Amino acid sequence: MKATFFIRAIVAIFLMLCIKSTSAQQQNAIISPVLNPDNTVTFKLISKVATSVKLKATWMPSAKPSVDMIKADSVWSYTTEKLDPDMYRYNYLLDGVEITDPLNSFVERAGIRHESILIIPGPISELYKVNDIPHGTLSKVWYHSPTLGMKRRMYVYTPPTYLENSNKYPVLYLLHGAGGDENSWTALGRAVSILDNLIATGKAKEMIVVMPNGNPWQAASPNEAPENSKAEKADVIQMGTMRFEKSLVSDVIPFIESHYRTYNDKNNRAIVGFSMGGLQTQHITNSNPTLFSFIGVLSMGLMDNNRFGPYNKEEHIQQINALQKSNPKLYWIGIGKDDYLYATVVNLRKFYDQQGFKYQYRESNGGHTWSNWSLYLTELAPTLFK
Amino acid sequence: MKATFFIRAIVAIFLMLCIKSTSAQQQNAIISPVLNPDNTVTFKLISKVATSVKLKATWMPSAKPSVDMIKADSVWSYTTEKLDPDMYRYNYLLDGVEITDPLNSFVERAGIRHESILIIPGPISELYKVNDIPHGTLSKVWYHSPTLGMKRRMYVYTPPTYLENSNKYPVLYLLHGAGGDENSWTALGRAVSILDNLIATGKAKEMIVVMPNGNPWQAASPNEAPENSKAEKADVIQMGTMRFEKSLVSDVIPFIESHYRTYNDKNNRAIVGFSMGGLQTQHITNSNPTLFSFIGVLSMGLMDNNRFGPYNKEEHIQQINALQKSNPKLYWIGIGKDDYLYATVVNLRKFYDQQGFKYQYRESNGGHTWSNWSLYLTELAPTLFK
Repeated sequence: MKATFFIRAIVAIFLMLCIKSTSAQQQNAIISPVLNPDNTVTFKLISKVATSVKLKATWMPSAKPSVDMIKADSVWSYTTEKLDPDMYRYNYLLDGVEITDPLNSFVERAGIRHESILIIPGPISELYKVNDIPHGTLSKVWYHSPTLGMKRRMYVYTPPTYLENSNKYPVLYLLHGAGGDENSWTALGRAVSILDNLIATGKAKEMIVVMPNGNPWQAASPNEAPENSKAEKADVIQMGTMRFEKSLVSDVIPFIESHYRTYNDKNNRAIVGFSMGGLQTQHITNSNPTLFSFIGVLSMGLMDNNRFGPYNKEEHIQQINALQKSNPKLYWIGIGKDDYLYATVVNLRKFYDQQGFKYQYRESNGGHTWSNWSLYLTELAPTLFK
Repeated sequence: MKATFFIRAIVAIFLMLCIKSTSAQQQNAIISPVLNPDNTVTFKLISKVATSVKLKATWMPSAKPSVDMIKADSVWSYTTEKLDPDMYRYNYLLDGVEITDPLNSFVERAGIRHESILIIPGPISELYKVNDIPHGTLSKVWYHSPTLGMKRRMYVYTPPTYLENSNKYPVLYLLHGAGGDENSWTALGRAVSILDNLIATGKAKEMIVVMPNGNPWQAASPNEAPENSKAEKADVIQMGTMRFEKSLVSDVIPFIESHYRTYNDKNNRAIVGFSMGGLQTQHITNSNPTLFSFIGVLSMGLMDNNRFGPYNKEEHIQQINALQKSNPKLYWIGIGKDDYLYATVVNLRKFYDQQGFKYQYRESNGGHTWSNWSLYLTELAPTLFK
């Protein structure tokens, strides 16, 4: 009798304990998104009373960034065209309000918004997935930045064997674009999975990857910084005005090289950044020509005013000559054919060609997107420190 | 002329680069949530065409878990009663669909859902905030679990000075409840902020905090585990059947003590868990009476069948006697007056009292909630390793 009571009580307790983990998805047996055998994808949202539901997604053209979903009974749905293997982000517009897909728990933060994530399987996407292989450690590390006058946070990836031995490792500094922060390369760029997967198959060397916050007015990601350090000096123009660039050289690199087991020479330092981070990468390597032997400038070229201050072409020529002289093992430029900054890269290449400065050039399809930045990382990482 | 063109181009580029970080909030100058001077809070959501909008939140009674928001023009709004200082979670029900607040970028994952976060300032909330003080490092670490036959992930907090010296530190193992995972204590429980703040004010000793995934069928959080390890053996009952408990003792502790600078004796080991993690804490310390000198059992007591298997009272008595004999410095039991497991704690205390087993008892207001588990951590952490 008493035993029966307790069994019932336990069942009741578990139902209560579990109620939050059984989703509408399971209760209604409606799943979203569903990858169909032909690589089309069906999205669903349940709402009896909504007036309109749209789907917006990163695979859609910027000219037509959303489509209407169609209601049948209480379920709104939409099936895409065939999608190429990649990681995509999408959201719904439910009666005009942008929301993540409530049936998909895979959500990442993109700046101050959140977006639902969809990975279409395929060779490239294998590198974006968490596979059953050795994994590195991702750490959220605070350091003091005298240059910027605050404690700041960065993400540090240490490769799978780092905890297992006392070896030294080379370091890749990976910079994000405007609107991003120290979370971007891991959340949207899949940097941890890319490194884990490339290292596991022997395609990339084991390396430490440092992902700082490139916004010099910010201590850390939104809601993860002290209130008194938040946005008071917010001015996105500051991202390319040497404040962060100086702090990377004066604060970040010394911190990493004194707190982690690193090789501390240029052949064991790489820096890669996209968009505003690509500008920062240029600024940092132009001003410090002997610091990095591996340099990647992604989706960002040269404007005449390339520092958002007075542009001094003579100084730039001297810098590029000094960089050439230091003979970096890799200077890699990547840009998408449809990138709205394409012309700036034409500009940059023209300038480098005039100066006889050597670089590798990679032109991909698509635009100013994470699809390209993740792709470039999969191509760049295997070439580093070799 | 050309300069003007470039300035315009740069402005245009920045507008494009920044378009994703300027929210509806800024565009419409409508902010949500707004903390009013009297500690009431006003929530807003913009939708011209929605049929109904409700607010549901963790401060609401479970008997009435949501309230209607009222539409004026295109803005739905609701103002709460005065709220006590605490961290709360809330969501909207927009035409029946649960969504986070699109005007609030502070969102955390709760199991497979996401929830908007609101911190009402006050003495206790100071411990939940990121303040301008030295911060520890939070790392996502993978380890091999022979006991469970997979690579598994845990979160490891190392205190502010860990990177600065070569000292050894004591270790707190912090266990989550059913429906949670290795992310729960940091995302919903504010464990990192609590430790940072207590350490900065000298109230708690510097310690390593290990937050494993207590679901033995799971390698890591949803969408962060390899696909082939996901949920195939999903059975929440397994959470209390000694599988995870054994792996903590056989896999997790040896990994931590061989890969981190730890003191490896019972006076430098603490274990604290709530709900199902409180049951696991009992199981682990009952079976290993000499392993931990500081033990916290939160919001979980004793059912006659306390292992979800046959209950052997004689064995339990022997275990408790052995634990008593090993003389732990702290055995702390916490429960909320309104917790639906309150009776199980009455049961446990009765049993301990019968056995003459010493413990500290803390009864708080409220129920089976994160408000209590965060509160208990703020009270427990200062007593550890002293």
